[in-house]
Amino acid sequence: MDCSVARSLEVIGEWWTLLILRDAFLGCTRFEDFQKRLGIARNVLSARLNTLVEADVLERVAYQERPERFEYLLTASGKELFPVVTGIRQWGDKWLSEGEPPLVLEHLECGHEAWFVPKCSHCGGELTHRNVRTLVPGRVKRRPRSGDESDVGNTFN
Amino acid sequence: MDCSVARSLEVIGEWWTLLILRDAFLGCTRFEDFQKRLGIARNVLSARLNTLVEADVLERVAYQERPERFEYLLTASGKELFPVVTGIRQWGDKWLSEGEPPLVLEHLECGHEAWFVPKCSHCGGELTHRNVRTLVPGRVKRRPRSGDESDVGNTFN
Repeated sequence: MDCSVARSLEVIGEWWTLLILRDAFLGCTRFEDFQKRLGIARNVLSARLNTLVEADVLERVAYQERPERFEYLLTASGKELFPVVTGIRQWGDKWLSEGEPPLVLEHLECGHEAWFVPKCSHCGGELTHRNVRTLVPGRVKRRPRSGDESDVGNTFN
Repeated sequence: MDCSVARSLEVIGEWWTLLILRDAFLGCTRFEDFQKRLGIARNVLSARLNTLVEADVLERVAYQERPERFEYLLTASGKELFPVVTGIRQWGDKWLSEGEPPLVLEHLECGHEAWFVPKCSHCGGELTHRNVRTLVPGRVKRRPRSGDESDVGNTFN
């Protein structure tokens, strides 16, 4: 399928994988710790971790030599799944948690409890299902990142 | 598991479900259309749609009487999965698409091609995995939505 949602789900859409990534964002790095936290069969955990390493979402790094032991660290690509994991958490907090969310985020730069609001990369307004259209590339007249407004509308006209 | 990620995945974590929601955001409403677009077995599609209806993510609405025909519409809760589906698409666009993304978003309010940037609900700065901490509630000193700065720090002190 020529679709980025489908391609992403080939990597992160298996059952357990998003929970493994949740724990990676909470600081979990070692096989035994993932296994204990998730209560998942070892062969399934091993398969999921391998998929994530092959897809360059996690990196397998030796942290001990004898016996050799590895930990699993989020790569640059893996770290950018933050909005996905956090978006799933926020939705569950709002719609499935009946009251107090189990965990909250502290934004270290302002020191406040926070959640994320999806803002437009161009104008900074909120993006919602109501104020966007999904199109094939080339159908939108104006592209973002034009600090210079003079070229607005030229790219595809 | 007392975790909003786990609870959410009980609803949206099954294989196919996020692709069904992707198509719902693209305007798909009818069983036959989902089935054609996804090439999914009818019993599996039916089971996934039922789960989403039971979880109040989709609403099953009659659009024809004889014979009775239904369509599946995103509920308020379902529409708020926009950042999840879009976050998955954006990640795939960046890391798995090698060049041009298959689809782009147009933000209707500014008319530009756009993606979403996750911004802090309190200060408006960007939220990333690097500048947040995840905590149990009550451990963050200052809560958001205090337009009145005088009560900052009071909630949990």
